[in-house]
Amino acid sequence: MLPVKIIERFRVTKGEGFKLKDYDPSDTADVDFDKEDGKEMLEAGVKRLAKLQERLYAEGRWAILMVLQGIDTAGKDGVIKHVLSGVNPQGCSVHSFKQPSSLELAHDFLWRTTVALPMRGRIGIFNRSYYEETLVVRVHHDLLEKQNLPEKLVTPDIWQQRFEDINNFELHLARNGTVPLKFFLHISKEEQLKRLLARIDDPDKRWKFSPYDVVERKLWDRYADAYEDMIRHTATKHAPWYVVPCDKKWFARLVVAGALAEHMDALDLQFPKVDEEEMKAIEKAHAELLAEKK
Amino acid sequence: MLPVKIIERFRVTKGEGFKLKDYDPSDTADVDFDKEDGKEMLEAGVKRLAKLQERLYAEGRWAILMVLQGIDTAGKDGVIKHVLSGVNPQGCSVHSFKQPSSLELAHDFLWRTTVALPMRGRIGIFNRSYYEETLVVRVHHDLLEKQNLPEKLVTPDIWQQRFEDINNFELHLARNGTVPLKFFLHISKEEQLKRLLARIDDPDKRWKFSPYDVVERKLWDRYADAYEDMIRHTATKHAPWYVVPCDKKWFARLVVAGALAEHMDALDLQFPKVDEEEMKAIEKAHAELLAEKK
Repeated sequence: MLPVKIIERFRVTKGEGFKLKDYDPSDTADVDFDKEDGKEMLEAGVKRLAKLQERLYAEGRWAILMVLQGIDTAGKDGVIKHVLSGVNPQGCSVHSFKQPSSLELAHDFLWRTTVALPMRGRIGIFNRSYYEETLVVRVHHDLLEKQNLPEKLVTPDIWQQRFEDINNFELHLARNGTVPLKFFLHISKEEQLKRLLARIDDPDKRWKFSPYDVVERKLWDRYADAYEDMIRHTATKHAPWYVVPCDKKWFARLVVAGALAEHMDALDLQFPKVDEEEMKAIEKAHAELLAEKK
Repeated sequence: MLPVKIIERFRVTKGEGFKLKDYDPSDTADVDFDKEDGKEMLEAGVKRLAKLQERLYAEGRWAILMVLQGIDTAGKDGVIKHVLSGVNPQGCSVHSFKQPSSLELAHDFLWRTTVALPMRGRIGIFNRSYYEETLVVRVHHDLLEKQNLPEKLVTPDIWQQRFEDINNFELHLARNGTVPLKFFLHISKEEQLKRLLARIDDPDKRWKFSPYDVVERKLWDRYADAYEDMIRHTATKHAPWYVVPCDKKWFARLVVAGALAEHMDALDLQFPKVDEEEMKAIEKAHAELLAEKK
């Protein structure tokens, strides 16, 4: 695991004054080891996460909500694959939020993700989330129109209101045992160019490429502004954002795994204790089993 | 319909200082007509509601969330039956919230009702609701234990936090086109006694009686305190409470129908307009149909 000190440097718990340009997507915190060392460390991290998750599940009181946001190719799928493989899927659920269905559009913007919230004892992973409502919907105004909101409710305040509603929603989750952890996967424009070209070049990766990615790439600056504003308004103590430098994939994964483990550690998760009465019942059952054995 | 002036007198939009004893459950606002007149007026009201609901549905932008709370026998089922029969069920959904399931208990306390929220264009009726989380759960502490919250989150602030979370949630709904209207069906202890005895006496009503109702009745004062505190903390401009006097059923239904109609009226619901382009397409289709007729 990366030292806590390094993890901390990417954590934002107070959004005010946040500037994306203060974070370098190619940062590796001067960790001086190579890709192979990174892999080994990640393996150890995944094992630790698997153990923590077992306790989370057994205790059945807390839930973790991992929100992953980031532009195409930033590495959302890779993080899920490499950080969460190894964790028991029985205690883990992944939801990818793409274009909303007509049923989803017929509800408020927090509805479709709320339906998919993890149960107590589970890690729920949102591959994109309600934050898209302040990102893609903000950059593409026609998407807002599709939401069929009453006209008089669509005012210039709408983004500010969405941030407030999200903050209140996350506070409610935190108060009720679901810990929101939010990861912004941050890559540079140059790195995205490389990855897009690699997708086209590699026949096994080509299915992941959509010409639409290039259309979106042209809106890079508007997305950057939207991400910055999002973090500025929604990074809180109870629901922090991690600005994860993602130009180096191995480093990004270590940061996510480390942050996740740190927060789970802090919950002091315990296997349920057996009380005296239950212990008596267990002893009785034990005796019965032994008697049967004779 | 009852005059707006009368409806207003039961509306609470600012909970601060609210006292239940200021509201008489046998109040009929000096309306001097008999049960039969009341029936006729309700019929007219239901027709008006049916028309408003047609527009709500056609426009498909707003939704109405009707929350019904009240002690056993207060008349929740009766209000739904008598005020909403006549409204097209295609645009109307009723959810009764009884004991939570284990799936529901494994989520935060707002989850199970959120899943059931009405789509745009619909009237959603909650027969009991998330407010039970500040009522029955508050009166019976063992129910809170069943929610499997992490111990450190169960503090004396929990009710205050629930009120805040509910207010924030309802504000979010209101901002996104779902109008929360909350009805507290208020009956006197004497009237409940009459109704419980009537349920036992009438073989057709006996199925509605549960001996447990008598157990709950013994907690009358604690429930009254919980209702009062609930209204005090959650009556807001965007999500008002109506304290509906329910000792006289006919009057209670008129109040609910009147309030509902008033709020729907205020939305200025319109059938979708056909724009120029669509009109051209309609004219073309019209011509084709006529040509086929020859």
